[in-house]
Amino acid sequence: MSKVEDLTTQQIAEQASAAMHSTDQCSQAMGMQIVAVGPGCANVEMAVREDFVNGQGYCHGGIITCLADTAFAHACNSYNRRTVAQGLSIEFVGSAILDDRLTAVASEQSRGRQTGVYQVLVYKACGKLIALLTGKSFERGGTLTAEI
Amino acid sequence: MSKVEDLTTQQIAEQASAAMHSTDQCSQAMGMQIVAVGPGCANVEMAVREDFVNGQGYCHGGIITCLADTAFAHACNSYNRRTVAQGLSIEFVGSAILDDRLTAVASEQSRGRQTGVYQVLVYKACGKLIALLTGKSFERGGTLTAEI
Amino acid sequence: MSKVEDLTTQQIAEQASAAMHSTDQCSQAMGMQIVAVGPGCANVEMAVREDFVNGQGYCHGGIITCLADTAFAHACNSYNRRTVAQGLSIEFVGSAILDDRLTAVASEQSRGRQTGVYQVLVYKACGKLIALLTGKSFERGGTLTAEI
Amino acid sequence: MSKVEDLTTQQIAEQASAAMHSTDQCSQAMGMQIVAVGPGCANVEMAVREDFVNGQGYCHGGIITCLADTAFAHACNSYNRRTVAQGLSIEFVGSAILDDRLTAVASEQSRGRQTGVYQVLVYKACGKLIALLTGKSFERGGTLTAEI
Repeated sequence: MSKVEDLTTQQIAEQASAAMHSTDQCSQAMGMQIVAVGPGCANVEMAVREDFVNGQGYCHGGIITCLADTAFAHACNSYNRRTVAQGLSIEFVGSAILDDRLTAVASEQSRGRQTGVYQVLVYKACGKLIALLTGKSFERGGTLTAEI
Repeated sequence: MSKVEDLTTQQIAEQASAAMHSTDQCSQAMGMQIVAVGPGCANVEMAVREDFVNGQGYCHGGIITCLADTAFAHACNSYNRRTVAQGLSIEFVGSAILDDRLTAVASEQSRGRQTGVYQVLVYKACGKLIALLTGKSFERGGTLTAEI
Repeated sequence: MSKVEDLTTQQIAEQASAAMHSTDQCSQAMGMQIVAVGPGCANVEMAVREDFVNGQGYCHGGIITCLADTAFAHACNSYNRRTVAQGLSIEFVGSAILDDRLTAVASEQSRGRQTGVYQVLVYKACGKLIALLTGKSFERGGTLTAEI
Repeated sequence: MSKVEDLTTQQIAEQASAAMHSTDQCSQAMGMQIVAVGPGCANVEMAVREDFVNGQGYCHGGIITCLADTAFAHACNSYNRRTVAQGLSIEFVGSAILDDRLTAVASEQSRGRQTGVYQVLVYKACGKLIALLTGKSFERGGTLTAEI
């Protein structure tokens, strides 16, 4: 079995992400796809389903936050160090409706010893930006994949 | 049929909330219950299901945000004026696991002509606070229930 | 000299606050007064001076943030454990002009082992709320007053 | 006198910024310099003075917020439409001390009919990022420079 020292940072990001997604029942149930990950970054997609729509006909802000938060989680766990969200802020600048395909792109803005800051941009398929999330991470210790 | 002038602010809040919830497929699909509403406030409950749990064994931050966001929506729409979330920030200060019953209590902090600020506190059944959300609302015009 | 064990939590808060303010050149230069402190809470006042006014005739949002941030700092350092701000979000819901007297009231919402969440409300003398800040603290270790 | 139609967007940004800075007593008193502006962006510098230092020896978080907020204001007013901050969130990821020279770079992330979202990064002279601000703007109507 490969040792973590033999892996590139890209390979570590991919294995950590795969380990995280395989047990993430929530993201799976919502139909999210982890399109790509790398050190400090992640790209996650999801289609707006009927049960994601709120009483005003638009995709629920909380659902958009779920998608963005998942991209944030994959980005901040991409070093295979178990990391959680301390908090986040999100601004909604557009809206999505049934069947829209959403893409959340997370990128690292800053990473210190225990804490990090990540930005996630959420787009519709047409390229229209609908939300910007800033997430603050906290490293709790431990790894996601013991075997690498 | 009753006219809106004849209703108390409490009745308006309840009718606006009922109208919103009846068409909110997302909150229904997630099993949320609107426990109580009033002018500028709302109390919403939800149990943590298997499909709400993330890869680290805890209820997904995005799911907690969905619950808090729904309480915020019921509070800021309680005057029967169609109002949307402009943005929110949430701090996670505790965690929830499978079968935990969560309560989100939203209360108005400020309300201007078009914008408002709401705080939502999310508790576990034991009373432990797990998240604090600050939401900013924007009134778009129109009502939720035409008939009142 | 008194030992920390002999002091009430109220006395500890007052001594930590006094130690902090005595060396805080910024708050002093801005004319802030620490009106009251207690465990997890603080009340700080300041008048709007000519050099606090921005190009649109209103007290600069950053200056209001300075005042609120100082109240937050006194509240989160009130246990005599050196604590810093990790981040904050502030919503501006009113405005202040020259000579307005502002009061910032900070209160603890949550406090864990290393991190805490505080809310600060900023009022004008008439009682009108003009800003709400949510601050996240991080305990770095060490104390503010060695002698207690 | 030149008409606004004859000006490039870059010239409009420069004139709006100059008009705003000329009356902004706060930014002037703090020694801020507007290094550059353009449509939706701004670069503002400031040195950390003795009266900006807090009781723990570091530049006050509120002061860093003032600087970042000023860069945000110049960016969101760069279309010569009077625009105010609705709210902001800032994460502190590093620290600054006496005599550090700080640079705040604001860039537009999204701009709708009335609201916009801006990100401001604050760096030290060495290039170390110390804070990230997300600001939400609201267009109130009117212009900054009547004569263009």
